[in-house]
Amino acid sequence: MEYPFQIIGIIRSCFKEKFGVPRQPGLATEARATLELQPPYDRPESLTGLEGFSHLWVVFVFHQALRDGWRPTVRPPRLGGNRRIGVFASRSPFRPNPIGLSVVALEKIDTSSAGCHLHLRGADLLDGTPVLDIKPYVPYCDALPEATAGFASAPPEEVFAVGFSEVAEVQCAAREAAGNPGLRKLIEQLLRLDPRPAYCSRRSPDEDGKPARQFGMRLYDIDLRWRVEEGRVLVTELLAVPDAGTGG
Amino acid sequence: MEYPFQIIGIIRSCFKEKFGVPRQPGLATEARATLELQPPYDRPESLTGLEGFSHLWVVFVFHQALRDGWRPTVRPPRLGGNRRIGVFASRSPFRPNPIGLSVVALEKIDTSSAGCHLHLRGADLLDGTPVLDIKPYVPYCDALPEATAGFASAPPEEVFAVGFSEVAEVQCAAREAAGNPGLRKLIEQLLRLDPRPAYCSRRSPDEDGKPARQFGMRLYDIDLRWRVEEGRVLVTELLAVPDAGTGG
Repeated sequence: MEYPFQIIGIIRSCFKEKFGVPRQPGLATEARATLELQPPYDRPESLTGLEGFSHLWVVFVFHQALRDGWRPTVRPPRLGGNRRIGVFASRSPFRPNPIGLSVVALEKIDTSSAGCHLHLRGADLLDGTPVLDIKPYVPYCDALPEATAGFASAPPEEVFAVGFSEVAEVQCAAREAAGNPGLRKLIEQLLRLDPRPAYCSRRSPDEDGKPARQFGMRLYDIDLRWRVEEGRVLVTELLAVPDAGTGG
Repeated sequence: MEYPFQIIGIIRSCFKEKFGVPRQPGLATEARATLELQPPYDRPESLTGLEGFSHLWVVFVFHQALRDGWRPTVRPPRLGGNRRIGVFASRSPFRPNPIGLSVVALEKIDTSSAGCHLHLRGADLLDGTPVLDIKPYVPYCDALPEATAGFASAPPEEVFAVGFSEVAEVQCAAREAAGNPGLRKLIEQLLRLDPRPAYCSRRSPDEDGKPARQFGMRLYDIDLRWRVEEGRVLVTELLAVPDAGTGG
C-alpha cells in the first residue's frame, strides 16, 4: 500500500547545493529560508495562531535523494564516514521514505503580499525543497533535553577559526550592504563546522607538500571560495554566479 | 506532483479506538506499543546503533483521518473545541497530508524472534497505525525547552482524581496479574486528563439532576467503563471485549 502525499509548500533558501548545508538545523542561526505555501494550500487562515510559536517543524522531502534509493545501513559523516549504522539510527536522507524533519525558528509570517510566506531562521534546507507539512513546535511534548543520544549526544565540534582574505572582506561587506544581511556571520557559522567530505578532513593536504585544496560552495548567488590553511579556514573570494536568478 | 510513500512498519498498541488516546505523546508513560517493521524493511541491520538512543521519532499516517480530508482551520480540544485556529498551527490529524509526528521512549529492540520489533513507551498511537519513518531523537537539535508555544505552552491540566469501584479494583488486579502490567497506572494517566469530548466537559451532568453519563473506552481487550461523579472519575468496571484478538 502506498500513500500519495502532495506538496503544500516550497523552500527558498540560501543553500543552492548540498555541499556546505549544515548537517542539522539550528547549527547556523543566520541561515535564512522562506517557506512559500503552494496552491490550493496557500490560505492565510491555515496559519492563524502560528504567530504565537517561536519554532516550527518542517516535514519535507529529501528531493535530491529520491533517485538514489535506500540501503539498510549508512555511514554518517559524524562518525568520520567509515563506520556503518542502521538507516533508522540515522538522520540520513537516503531512507526508505525520504522524509526529512527539521525544527526551525519562525521569524515572521507574511500573508499580505501575493501568497503565504513563512520567514525562517536556522534552517538546514536546500533551496527548492518540497514541503509536506508544517507543525507548531510544542516544548512540553517535543523538548526532551535529558534524552540520551548514542553517537550524536553532542553538537559537532567547531573545528576551525574562520578568516577572510582582504579581497573577501571587501566583497563580503559589499554583499551585506546590497541585501544579504548577516552574510559574514553565516559564512563563519558554516565553515567553522568543517563541511569538507570526511576523506578530506582525515588528512591535512598542506602537510604532505601539496598546495591546500580550494573548495567552493554556492550560497545565495555567490560562489564562495575557501581553503584550509595552517589549521584554520581562509575565505579567499566571493564570486558572482553568472546564471544566478534563473536557478530555483 | 505527488510523492508515493511506503509503509515501513505497523504500530501495535493498547489503544484500540480513537476515544481516550492521549492528545500528545509522553502524557501517559505507561502506554505501551510495539512497532513492527514490515517487509522488505524488516532488516535487523537497519536498526544498528539505535539502541544508544533513549527516544525516537515515529513519523506515521493518521489512517483514521484519511477519508475526512482537510480544512484550513480546526478547533483543537485544548481550546475547548470552540475556537478555530489554522491547521498548520495545530497538531490535528485532519491536515493536507495526514502525517503524524510523535516522540516515544525506546524500551527495547527485539530482532531475535521472527521480525524486527521496537518496544515503545509513552505513545499516543492507535493500534494499526502505519509508520513511514523512524528517526533517532537528537536532543542537541530537537530539544528546545525554551521555545514559546502560544496556546500550547503548558501540558494539559490533570483535571481529575481517579478512583476505582470495588469491582473494578478486583478486575484490574486480575488483568495486571494476567499480563497487562502497569494497567492501573495507565488508566489513571489517561482518565485524569479528562478524555471526554469538549461538549461534555463544559457541563456537569450530575449538577442538572440527570444521572452521570457512563463512558466506555477500549484499552487492550478491555472495555473500560467510567463516569465523572462528584468532581472525580470513578472507574466502574473492566469488561472483556467479546471479539478481542480478531481486531488489528
